[in-house]
Amino acid sequence: MVENLFFVGFIGAAVSLLFAFFQGRKVMKYSEGSDVMKKIALAIRTGADAYIRRQYTTVAAFFVFMFIVLLVLSFIKTADGATLVNKFTPFAFLSGGFICGLCGIVGLKVATRANVRTAQAATEGLNKSLRVAFSSGTVMGFVVNGFQILEVITWYTVLKFGFKVTDEVIAQTMITFGMGVSVMAVFARVGGGIFTKAADVGADLVGKVEAGIPEDDPRNPAVIADNVGDNVGDVAGMGADLHQSNSGALVATVAIGFAAGYGVAGMLLPIIVCIIGVLMSIVGTFFVRTKEQTDQKTLLNALRRGVFIAGGLAAIGTLPAILFIARNAENAGRMSEFAYGIFGAVIVGIVSGFIISFLTEYYTSDASKPTRELADASKTGSATLIIGGLSLGMRSVTLPMLTISGAVLAAFFVSGGYADFNIGLYGIGLAAVAMLATNAIILATDAFGPVADNAGGIAEMAKLPHEVRERTDALDSLGNTTAATGKGFAIASNAFTALVLLVNYVNLVNTKLEAAGRELLDLSVINPPVLIGFFCGVAMVFYFSALCISAVQRAAMKIVDEVRRQFREIIGLLEGKEGVQADYATCVDICTKGALKEMIAPTLIVIGSPILAGLILGPAGVVGFLAGTVLAGFALAVFMLNSGGAWDNAKKFIERGNLGGKGSDQHKAAVIGDTVGDPLKDTAGPSFNNVMVLATTVAIVFSGVAIAFSLIK
Amino acid sequence: MVENLFFVGFIGAAVSLLFAFFQGRKVMKYSEGSDVMKKIALAIRTGADAYIRRQYTTVAAFFVFMFIVLLVLSFIKTADGATLVNKFTPFAFLSGGFICGLCGIVGLKVATRANVRTAQAATEGLNKSLRVAFSSGTVMGFVVNGFQILEVITWYTVLKFGFKVTDEVIAQTMITFGMGVSVMAVFARVGGGIFTKAADVGADLVGKVEAGIPEDDPRNPAVIADNVGDNVGDVAGMGADLHQSNSGALVATVAIGFAAGYGVAGMLLPIIVCIIGVLMSIVGTFFVRTKEQTDQKTLLNALRRGVFIAGGLAAIGTLPAILFIARNAENAGRMSEFAYGIFGAVIVGIVSGFIISFLTEYYTSDASKPTRELADASKTGSATLIIGGLSLGMRSVTLPMLTISGAVLAAFFVSGGYADFNIGLYGIGLAAVAMLATNAIILATDAFGPVADNAGGIAEMAKLPHEVRERTDALDSLGNTTAATGKGFAIASNAFTALVLLVNYVNLVNTKLEAAGRELLDLSVINPPVLIGFFCGVAMVFYFSALCISAVQRAAMKIVDEVRRQFREIIGLLEGKEGVQADYATCVDICTKGALKEMIAPTLIVIGSPILAGLILGPAGVVGFLAGTVLAGFALAVFMLNSGGAWDNAKKFIERGNLGGKGSDQHKAAVIGDTVGDPLKDTAGPSFNNVMVLATTVAIVFSGVAIAFSLIK
Repeated sequence: MVENLFFVGFIGAAVSLLFAFFQGRKVMKYSEGSDVMKKIALAIRTGADAYIRRQYTTVAAFFVFMFIVLLVLSFIKTADGATLVNKFTPFAFLSGGFICGLCGIVGLKVATRANVRTAQAATEGLNKSLRVAFSSGTVMGFVVNGFQILEVITWYTVLKFGFKVTDEVIAQTMITFGMGVSVMAVFARVGGGIFTKAADVGADLVGKVEAGIPEDDPRNPAVIADNVGDNVGDVAGMGADLHQSNSGALVATVAIGFAAGYGVAGMLLPIIVCIIGVLMSIVGTFFVRTKEQTDQKTLLNALRRGVFIAGGLAAIGTLPAILFIARNAENAGRMSEFAYGIFGAVIVGIVSGFIISFLTEYYTSDASKPTRELADASKTGSATLIIGGLSLGMRSVTLPMLTISGAVLAAFFVSGGYADFNIGLYGIGLAAVAMLATNAIILATDAFGPVADNAGGIAEMAKLPHEVRERTDALDSLGNTTAATGKGFAIASNAFTALVLLVNYVNLVNTKLEAAGRELLDLSVINPPVLIGFFCGVAMVFYFSALCISAVQRAAMKIVDEVRRQFREIIGLLEGKEGVQADYATCVDICTKGALKEMIAPTLIVIGSPILAGLILGPAGVVGFLAGTVLAGFALAVFMLNSGGAWDNAKKFIERGNLGGKGSDQHKAAVIGDTVGDPLKDTAGPSFNNVMVLATTVAIVFSGVAIAFSLIK
Repeated sequence: MVENLFFVGFIGAAVSLLFAFFQGRKVMKYSEGSDVMKKIALAIRTGADAYIRRQYTTVAAFFVFMFIVLLVLSFIKTADGATLVNKFTPFAFLSGGFICGLCGIVGLKVATRANVRTAQAATEGLNKSLRVAFSSGTVMGFVVNGFQILEVITWYTVLKFGFKVTDEVIAQTMITFGMGVSVMAVFARVGGGIFTKAADVGADLVGKVEAGIPEDDPRNPAVIADNVGDNVGDVAGMGADLHQSNSGALVATVAIGFAAGYGVAGMLLPIIVCIIGVLMSIVGTFFVRTKEQTDQKTLLNALRRGVFIAGGLAAIGTLPAILFIARNAENAGRMSEFAYGIFGAVIVGIVSGFIISFLTEYYTSDASKPTRELADASKTGSATLIIGGLSLGMRSVTLPMLTISGAVLAAFFVSGGYADFNIGLYGIGLAAVAMLATNAIILATDAFGPVADNAGGIAEMAKLPHEVRERTDALDSLGNTTAATGKGFAIASNAFTALVLLVNYVNLVNTKLEAAGRELLDLSVINPPVLIGFFCGVAMVFYFSALCISAVQRAAMKIVDEVRRQFREIIGLLEGKEGVQADYATCVDICTKGALKEMIAPTLIVIGSPILAGLILGPAGVVGFLAGTVLAGFALAVFMLNSGGAWDNAKKFIERGNLGGKGSDQHKAAVIGDTVGDPLKDTAGPSFNNVMVLATTVAIVFSGVAIAFSLIK
């Protein structure tokens, strides 16, 4: 039986995790360099580990609380005899959070060991240091993808063959699993994002702007905190984020596959697509190599070659898989009828992912017009530069929104949406899965950026020769460019996923209402609860952003005060007197406390508001709420990511000697622009990846509660 | 017959216009001061007149074009024999634009005469100068309200008694009229907004930040342009904007009144409410007086007293009017059944207007916590101040959105929405009308701000004694505080109006579809065209904002270059050498050209995109588009208005001697914040008042086209 192909999933997961393991071993074989370097790396690692331990403890407490809530709900029966949530829900929730957290930790462990090795390798050449950094990135990429496959298959095996439950229960459990993943991801993104940007902004404002010392100068008391931040935010946070993106797309597609009548085949197909993606990503990594002496452009091309080859091969490989499954699976409904259409949706997904990435790069790369013009605005000072960046960010929302809406429509129709609504939705879901199938290599080309950034910090602090820093800077800047691709894929796939989950919610509620003999949902835009829901969804998105940004601002201001204090009170520090050392630990502590305290409110708001909307406005209001959240969330995310990215690159453009170069008034203006952009692009903006999916999964998990207890029926 | 009460409208309009006339005469009686002052005032007046003439010429060309388009459409017949638009449409469109433009011009003429008189009066005392400035504000307030009543009644008389057309044709014609008003308002807002902020930003960046000379210093070559800008943006632009708000609410309510089955009574009632508002506003103006020697707080209380008394009396006065009309009008449907409910909606409207105003003030006034904390962020430099302002603005979106959605729901239900959808909508519309009924006095307390600002400029340039400037500054700051009320009412009422028009669109299209034997609209949130429409609406809003903001940025950068050039090339200018004068005209010219060129694209996008959405996505897509526009437009508008307002007031707070006062690093940071906020709060932000209504009226006028020619049926 073709259904047994399913167990191939375990092999796929194993391959992915083993590949990650060997890449990790490879990284560890490189030299850590001198004792000074080891000592600095240890300080960074200790700070990062300490933060993550405290963050996970806080999050664990919340998971226990939610576990109890879900457990209680799983015992409460409604009028029709069903419980408010199924009995697997609490456990699925816990396991999702656990796995997602694990992805973050693995990434962090590797990154905090790879950073110093990358710095040491950079003493020998650009290519070697790229290999170390890139290998550490692949570890995270393949861990994320491996776990994603493993978790879905394991739950399926347990539920289907262990407990022999219905497909509907499987779908619901998977979505709860996705909710657990999303909760963890939002905590990690927000907490890590606050930490890293508070340190970054604080360090830059006093160090670069006021004292005029270089970035990562060991005299700066916030320098260790800044480097710790790269790890807890850009590595652990991003790992959790992207694991969530992958899992979200997968569980949404699996869940809608049942509604589309595709049965087990509907579940098998996305898993096979993921496995193909993993295999092709492995192939892709072998193309990421250049000759020993090389320049940055060649490196960029090497990275791009890897990503494109993996994406292309995966796209091609998907067709036979679809045809095989569609033709041979039993009970696959009309899948064989729409096989080529489903493949069309896959292509739509991959292509639209690349388009959004291209647009992100177009708006933020200093090689293209918008960012060049933005850099030009620094001539008239920071005010026009900031006005220009805000306007650039707003403008950059337009085309991605039109692309996403066009792509969603296209995926829907080609995959069979004209014949059956849920079949079309399955196409959208599969498009999201396909977009992320080669995420392992995309993530690898993305995750080495913070490692290189850290390596640069270590090089600076350990006073390694000038060319070492130049090489790590080149890698860092390379990472910034390739990161645009990762960001584009992540936001696009999550928009797809959230829309699929939104419709999944509607299906689910309507099924329950029908069973209870009640009227189906009136989802008309002009139905008051729907309209009010919209307003509330948009309001929530703005409030969430505000909390993230102001958290960074508050913590950064504390860092500024502390750094100023140390410069003032520790005599000889700013002058760089031998033997005088800054008190790094205090700054790490300020960031840790700020992040832990301030990550809670935004996350709780995202979890609480769909539940509240359900209780007050009823399920129709929830649909409006989710639509508002997805729409405004996507728009604000793109706005913030691109404004921030463009400011960052405008600054880098000037630092490379353009428009007056480092130290000029233009540069000062650009540093302010970059600082303003930091919390937008690295704290609030990327969180929306997870927020969109978290809000929808929460709504689904608590749909029974909304139906039973809502004020407006 | 009670229907004849209708002609009372002419009397109401006449009273309002006459009151304005006498207030204008009163202003003109004050002295213009010295020859130097007269000369400066003349320069400002000449610049403003020249700009407005050119702006209106450009806009007139566009009106002629649209007139021809509408004329052509009024001859094209669809399958069912009806024309695409009715034959009055082209004329109604023209007349709307004309009247709206007229309001702007009258405001401008008065303001450019009142400014110098206010400056002269300020030599004698704060109270006297307030009287001049406030009287000039009342002129605009009462002109706007008078015309609003006059235009609606005139069209009704012509159509009903002249052409004897059906109520449906009347409703459509009125909405086209509203579209004409909105087009003019958007042009005026955007063009004036670009002019004023380009001049302001440019003047501040070189003058205050670089050269360190005070605001309005005659050495600054952009100083006349800056003062011209206050008039064309904050006076003419705002006049057109608020006339549009009033008219929009009125025509929307009248149109939905027919659908609600209220007939002529449905039309009569909002007009009577407006008349009551005008009369009570007149009463209110008499309470705006204080003793001769007074402080700012007393003045603020005097202004507030006027507004509250007018609002309160109008609210009370509405009840007997509703009861009388509901009980005595023929063919008023179920109006008498819901009379008290309708009054409830009126109260909801007025109260929610005050709540939104209060929230605006809370977030932006330097007397309250958010702005105080924002000012504090200047201690760590402009970057944290800007981050803080962005976060403040985003946070400030939440409560107004919840208030609006709650108020809309409340107005809908209390006025009878539970019994009949359209009856509930009528309640929402009437709530918007009531909110704006006393707009004459609200506008008066708002419009004197720019006059005082100009007076300060004249005082500075004419080198009047220090205390004169202090008095005009006090008035200016007073105007900023009361402006929050005006802004709150304007944005809230337009959100109400846009929602009513949105449903009006749905009614209209469904009626036509039903007549043609086609299926009614599927407005489900998850219907693909609706969903795509949403995305497009949000995308349009962001794009519109981006265009407005970048227009200011570009023009401001040109001003900066020009001012720097003059300081460099005109020897002795910066040193203030006797006889050396700046070349003011060039700066005025740069602003004029920039504004005229850049106002076109944003306006065309707002007009074009609902038409395009209709042609591609069909009427259901248009509904999604409009919902996205209203939602995102409201949220972005509040975000931008409040961020900008808070930065402005944080700067003023520091300038009053707090946190280091003028010239400190904190002050410099605050000036940058204020500058960043300028295009947000005075160009892009307030434009959304008009954009929301313009998009919906365009959709309604072109609904026939969308039904006949859309790709997706």
